[in-house]
Amino acid sequence: MNNIKLSQRQEEIIQLVKENEPITSEQLAAKLNLTRAALRPDLSILTMTGILDAKPKVGYIYSQKPSYNAVNEYIRKIKVEDIMSKPVIVSESTTVYDAIVDLFLHDAGTLFVENNGVLVGATSRKDFLKFAMGGTDMHKVPVGIIMTRMPNIIVVDKDELAYDAACKIIEHEIDSLPVVEKVIDNNKDGLKIIGKVSKTNITKLFVKMGKNI
Amino acid sequence: MNNIKLSQRQEEIIQLVKENEPITSEQLAAKLNLTRAALRPDLSILTMTGILDAKPKVGYIYSQKPSYNAVNEYIRKIKVEDIMSKPVIVSESTTVYDAIVDLFLHDAGTLFVENNGVLVGATSRKDFLKFAMGGTDMHKVPVGIIMTRMPNIIVVDKDELAYDAACKIIEHEIDSLPVVEKVIDNNKDGLKIIGKVSKTNITKLFVKMGKNI
Repeated sequence: MNNIKLSQRQEEIIQLVKENEPITSEQLAAKLNLTRAALRPDLSILTMTGILDAKPKVGYIYSQKPSYNAVNEYIRKIKVEDIMSKPVIVSESTTVYDAIVDLFLHDAGTLFVENNGVLVGATSRKDFLKFAMGGTDMHKVPVGIIMTRMPNIIVVDKDELAYDAACKIIEHEIDSLPVVEKVIDNNKDGLKIIGKVSKTNITKLFVKMGKNI
Repeated sequence: MNNIKLSQRQEEIIQLVKENEPITSEQLAAKLNLTRAALRPDLSILTMTGILDAKPKVGYIYSQKPSYNAVNEYIRKIKVEDIMSKPVIVSESTTVYDAIVDLFLHDAGTLFVENNGVLVGATSRKDFLKFAMGGTDMHKVPVGIIMTRMPNIIVVDKDELAYDAACKIIEHEIDSLPVVEKVIDNNKDGLKIIGKVSKTNITKLFVKMGKNI
């Protein structure tokens, strides 16, 4: 890990800018009892790192967004495979009751449904709750009847960005995406599930990014 | 937005380090036809910004994590009030059936329960689904019977960090936190709900952070 280590003088400059912004380099130099030339390397480091912002003819101000660009760049290196977790998979003929039990056993929010190794559907807590409201016997109906069916399922590839997965989750208002790859088998056509990415995975990633290591 | 703008020479240095890492400052100076002294300011900027890493007695290497610290710092400026959204609140006497209808109407994952303007409980899709599995009549049971009750509800303050909210969500395995403040009324004691922070809010924040502006 690479921290930006600031010298004591640089910290002093930041403090002065915070208290007096906007402040010119002349004013800073005077306050620090230095020449402008002596101050120049520090100021260029502080503006290049985005800690200070230099407004022409106004002076230096303390930036509220120290390195948004770095954040952006950092996020766009994280792939789905770096954050995906194990999916809970049931077969199409599983009863709704057994599927809900499975959901609770794994504390999952979404179940994915496979048929002969191929993704055919997905159901969420919300789907199950809607079904339960109807009052139909959960033991008699298979999950295949209530699931959202392919091709209406939003999927993601393990090589896509975690950012892309998060965008799909927000855009389509879903909790969890299956991570899929093409089935390589001449007798089959379709996608198989190799993982999942949910809002939980994104939240965990956010926590990891915010942790002081 | 503050980008770190690199000079052409700095870009050249990065390229040379990528191709020859580890490489000493002498070797870099020789390749660029410069003295070590002339190179020093650029190298110090490149290591301070975390683009290069200086290994003592080994040389410079290109860092895989350009500015983790910047990410960290950026995240730790975002407060709960910057990302919170509107909570769905019901009263303790609402029937489970009506509460679930409310949940669907607002497409919420969690309902918060208030009594006389004070937070008393919370229920999630999971709680409702568990209840539905039991087969009891949803029209006859009030939400107060099945909700998680105070003080067993994890709350967050609007001035806490979004990062702290995300940590609480992951640590306690919950979907949504009520954002609360103390009720200022001599006749009442407790917390009132002013917002909520869920995994959805964190995921939206992540998308915003990853967006190229």
